[in-house]
Amino acid sequence: MANYKLVLSYDGSRYKGWQKLGNQELTIQKIVEDTIKEVLDHQVEIHGSGRTDAGVHARGQVANMKVPFLLKETFRDEVNTKLPEDICLVEVIRVPGEFHARYSASGKEYRYYVDLKEKPSVFTRKFTCHFPEEVNLDAMKEVASYLTGVHDFSAFTDDKTERDKVRNIYDIQVIEKQGVLEIIYQGDGFLQHMVRIMTGTLLDVGVGKMMAKDIPDILESRERAKAGFMAPAKGLFLEKVDYK
Amino acid sequence: MANYKLVLSYDGSRYKGWQKLGNQELTIQKIVEDTIKEVLDHQVEIHGSGRTDAGVHARGQVANMKVPFLLKETFRDEVNTKLPEDICLVEVIRVPGEFHARYSASGKEYRYYVDLKEKPSVFTRKFTCHFPEEVNLDAMKEVASYLTGVHDFSAFTDDKTERDKVRNIYDIQVIEKQGVLEIIYQGDGFLQHMVRIMTGTLLDVGVGKMMAKDIPDILESRERAKAGFMAPAKGLFLEKVDYK
Repeated sequence: MANYKLVLSYDGSRYKGWQKLGNQELTIQKIVEDTIKEVLDHQVEIHGSGRTDAGVHARGQVANMKVPFLLKETFRDEVNTKLPEDICLVEVIRVPGEFHARYSASGKEYRYYVDLKEKPSVFTRKFTCHFPEEVNLDAMKEVASYLTGVHDFSAFTDDKTERDKVRNIYDIQVIEKQGVLEIIYQGDGFLQHMVRIMTGTLLDVGVGKMMAKDIPDILESRERAKAGFMAPAKGLFLEKVDYK
Repeated sequence: MANYKLVLSYDGSRYKGWQKLGNQELTIQKIVEDTIKEVLDHQVEIHGSGRTDAGVHARGQVANMKVPFLLKETFRDEVNTKLPEDICLVEVIRVPGEFHARYSASGKEYRYYVDLKEKPSVFTRKFTCHFPEEVNLDAMKEVASYLTGVHDFSAFTDDKTERDKVRNIYDIQVIEKQGVLEIIYQGDGFLQHMVRIMTGTLLDVGVGKMMAKDIPDILESRERAKAGFMAPAKGLFLEKVDYK
């Protein structure tokens, strides 16, 4: 079997997320699998680096698939011709058989966009969260510093399973440009809703609803209710997935 | 009567342009008039600075309207609450009675976006023209210099009427950033399809289908067929309208 790494970008606005659900549900995975089947005349299963929620976008989602033949040079273009215009197959690279988009990943980068202006731009409304408030950037950066590092992120996820909730967050950057915040999260992995809850917490602190200095206690408590709100899906981008 | 200047931004993707057509047609002017009527409980007529074609966007379209009373402070917010999310009333300013969005305008700025990358971005696909070619920027800038100034632009419009076709183009800038061209046009006025035909001509020269040095002869000829193709609507933005 030949193993291929696929890099995908998508505007998640109209999809119920990455992960295949029932046959009737519109998900990125299903659309991409169906399109590849149409091109190859062969049913494939693609394995994503992780799920993205309904409405979340990706600039560099990664998946892999195994096929019992080699793909033609024209494969990527053929797939793109048939994909809807809100999904793009950016790269197709042959990789060793042991490569797995999820298990081989060494890190991920997410970016979240917040439009602080009074009126949201009609052009970026599907890709930013509108939050027309004065925010204290220094306080938000202080939160970012507390969240960086190795922590149990139970308070920052809606994952109620017994799975391990310890993650290593390498870096969180809060950048403001012309009334739009870009928050860049890099880490070894992220739990369900974690980036959106971290973003909501940053914003709650930004407007003074919560205090930055309470973050260590909130992490310690492992109680979801103590962290901030969950920022909406549409401002979130899976930027890239790293492999060693 | 109180006269008001309205500044509007819109994502023109799903509209049949600015100008009101039949009652069933979706146009920006109709939606804005209907929304204002709902807010004021009074029928108004708004006069735009000019038409924008179906699919063309605006960051700063200007219109004016006269009403037999003064608008409340909350007018703009009320209108925005009721407008669809792809149209935004950015500003409402009371102006002297003689102000007319079209006749008082002293100049306009349009911007056109061209994505030169092999695969168009799924995030900007509604706001850029995809043109995956190597272009000669210097040749395009030479075209820009020939088109700048006072000329009869009959060759660069689809307006077949006897109306005066002389316009003064103050400046055309061609800027390339990370595979995306931004072409900025400033002038005292623009004829039907003129920015799109100038853009198509710039691109035709950029890929060597036409020669920059032929532009003066094309202007001179006044023949539409000699100029370049008409670039698609979706890459075009009415950036702003100037008044003295």
